[in-house]
Amino acid sequence: MEKIVWKYKTPGIPDQYFIRGKVPMTKEEVRAVTISKLRLQEDSIVVDIGAGTGSIAIEAAHICRLGKVVAIERNEEGIQLIRQNQQRFQVELDILHGNGAALLHTIDFFDRAIVGGSGGELEEILALCYQKLPDMGIVVVNAVTIETLYEATQYMKECGYQDIEVISLQTARGKQLGKYTLMEALNPIYVISGTKGQSSEQEEER
Amino acid sequence: MEKIVWKYKTPGIPDQYFIRGKVPMTKEEVRAVTISKLRLQEDSIVVDIGAGTGSIAIEAAHICRLGKVVAIERNEEGIQLIRQNQQRFQVELDILHGNGAALLHTIDFFDRAIVGGSGGELEEILALCYQKLPDMGIVVVNAVTIETLYEATQYMKECGYQDIEVISLQTARGKQLGKYTLMEALNPIYVISGTKGQSSEQEEER
Amino acid sequence: MEKIVWKYKTPGIPDQYFIRGKVPMTKEEVRAVTISKLRLQEDSIVVDIGAGTGSIAIEAAHICRLGKVVAIERNEEGIQLIRQNQQRFQVELDILHGNGAALLHTIDFFDRAIVGGSGGELEEILALCYQKLPDMGIVVVNAVTIETLYEATQYMKECGYQDIEVISLQTARGKQLGKYTLMEALNPIYVISGTKGQSSEQEEER
Amino acid sequence: MEKIVWKYKTPGIPDQYFIRGKVPMTKEEVRAVTISKLRLQEDSIVVDIGAGTGSIAIEAAHICRLGKVVAIERNEEGIQLIRQNQQRFQVELDILHGNGAALLHTIDFFDRAIVGGSGGELEEILALCYQKLPDMGIVVVNAVTIETLYEATQYMKECGYQDIEVISLQTARGKQLGKYTLMEALNPIYVISGTKGQSSEQEEER
Repeated sequence: MEKIVWKYKTPGIPDQYFIRGKVPMTKEEVRAVTISKLRLQEDSIVVDIGAGTGSIAIEAAHICRLGKVVAIERNEEGIQLIRQNQQRFQVELDILHGNGAALLHTIDFFDRAIVGGSGGELEEILALCYQKLPDMGIVVVNAVTIETLYEATQYMKECGYQDIEVISLQTARGKQLGKYTLMEALNPIYVISGTKGQSSEQEEER
Repeated sequence: MEKIVWKYKTPGIPDQYFIRGKVPMTKEEVRAVTISKLRLQEDSIVVDIGAGTGSIAIEAAHICRLGKVVAIERNEEGIQLIRQNQQRFQVELDILHGNGAALLHTIDFFDRAIVGGSGGELEEILALCYQKLPDMGIVVVNAVTIETLYEATQYMKECGYQDIEVISLQTARGKQLGKYTLMEALNPIYVISGTKGQSSEQEEER
Repeated sequence: MEKIVWKYKTPGIPDQYFIRGKVPMTKEEVRAVTISKLRLQEDSIVVDIGAGTGSIAIEAAHICRLGKVVAIERNEEGIQLIRQNQQRFQVELDILHGNGAALLHTIDFFDRAIVGGSGGELEEILALCYQKLPDMGIVVVNAVTIETLYEATQYMKECGYQDIEVISLQTARGKQLGKYTLMEALNPIYVISGTKGQSSEQEEER
Repeated sequence: MEKIVWKYKTPGIPDQYFIRGKVPMTKEEVRAVTISKLRLQEDSIVVDIGAGTGSIAIEAAHICRLGKVVAIERNEEGIQLIRQNQQRFQVELDILHGNGAALLHTIDFFDRAIVGGSGGELEEILALCYQKLPDMGIVVVNAVTIETLYEATQYMKECGYQDIEVISLQTARGKQLGKYTLMEALNPIYVISGTKGQSSEQEEER
């Protein structure tokens, strides 16, 4: 296994650096935006629910060197990929195999949560995160379907999250064909984020 | 003047935190992607040509605490805004007022360059960056026009940059209207990046 | 009042040809796609619910010369605009002022329905359309919010519509600034369409 | 071969109705917008340069029943597909096999031109169209690369076209996955159009 040392302070590791299977992976530009919405600190404790290939968890682990990143995935193939990518990038990661909601119950503390896949339990997961997050804790949902987009916004409101933000990102990448640059689209992604409790905006701007 | 302490390790400072005039500002999601393409290290020396409100320079300054960030802007209103934003965020920034190409000549060393505005001198700026950047140095151009998009890709090829990458980003943001979330589009942005000399990809993946 | 003779067989009348107030108008590219999803025939009877400025109704009236187009709008300002635009383009249009669902009850027959605005009665409107449309009748919803996007797809499924199709359209237009072409985004639109009864696709492809 | 009778007056024939090979096809939503920018009349004479599968030519032939549509394609596989699609849709079409610029010389008159592929001769093709088009004639270029986008806008300006318009279209389509609707992106398309001589806008708005 080739090791990769990511020596940069910035997220957005190129997609091809990750070992991928058939598991869909969050593309590097979307990872950069997702990580930015998570507003990580060096000592953040991050839970990645539905971690897929682990690409977001690994980006977070590069930043939260004094904190911790927990990657939850219920798909066995995903778990294998996360382990392989963890070894490739040599980051610390707690990898938990199983159901997102059930495993969230077992984690004592986290102040950031990213939901990449919810296995149909989005409502319960967002409620659990709200219950467990400290004041100013942040949750971010990455959605690729209309239903998850809608449900994430609705459930966040119902739970009481503040500063709920929804963005859609449509990215295209140039592919070189001789002297031409063909623009190829990536699927649109919706990034929905919310904060528990008083808005950090207000606090900081005082 | 209110001070803002950006206590996070991640870029993507909310747009409304910056003092803005009529100068167009790179939006927070685009800043997050731009910063990710710059692949900053703690000791990077970054030049921001056409720094506008200084928003990208300030994001870079948060990350490059052992390096340096130079913001070049030829518009007087821009210079004022950069100074105000620098004071607001209390970061170190070298602010240079004048023509991009001319001022680049005066800077001894930098290993990252971001071109947000070129004042019609894109070709000269990209050539100068190529000349001054060390091996593995990176340049990123943010374009909002068809002409700059095209010229940036052409000039980068002509200069000899490697790993030239072009992406387009189309972002929309939800705006709450009663119980509805109206999606409002931001203008599309093209992010063109290139590396001087041997690809970092190849080096790292060996 | 200037008259405009639209002498073309194709939809997509330039936006600036319409009299607009503060009422949001479906942009010409989105109108072209919406009209295409309606699959109009010369003798189609079309109902436009939430007709806004009447721009889609007027496009439809240009095509359905042996049929009829009914424009429903509950906003008084909208009704004035529809009347003015009808006079400007000199097309036949039944203009009904009032509540969409209530007025749909009074219309004996239509085989195409476009919902541009539902005033919170989308479920009832889609159910009524399903009840009144003949076999192979088509309904198209233009949505600009996450909630309408989601609800339109859900309600169409619940009503029993077939061939439900969802597309999102993100358009940007070049604006000339000296020698540069700045790309300016229009807000994303979601176009959701469905057919009552057996799919026209299957029938035609036999 | 199954025949398809397209009984609608509106463009936007579903993609799956066409026989496709490996030749890229203009997607139905883009066809609807392209046709709208062509502003066809019943007696328009249309030339489709780089006709690909013939999908745009066939849409035009449905509308220009008193005019004519000429499909030019230099790729042999394309020619076969155009013939097959013509038979499938039973429309009249002049199909010319060979080089776009060379064949344009042989056509006496046309008042609309659509350029779907230029084989590297875009400049010559746009100049020839300008020379041959009557006053108020319209040319539309569909571009999928940065270079064609740029060159189309530049050459149109140099030729003297008026009312040059550039739009980018980014479409995504919902794909049903159980109860979820996954949004899948189509590649972005740029539609550049221009008119020879005095703007129809000004004439009509008098």
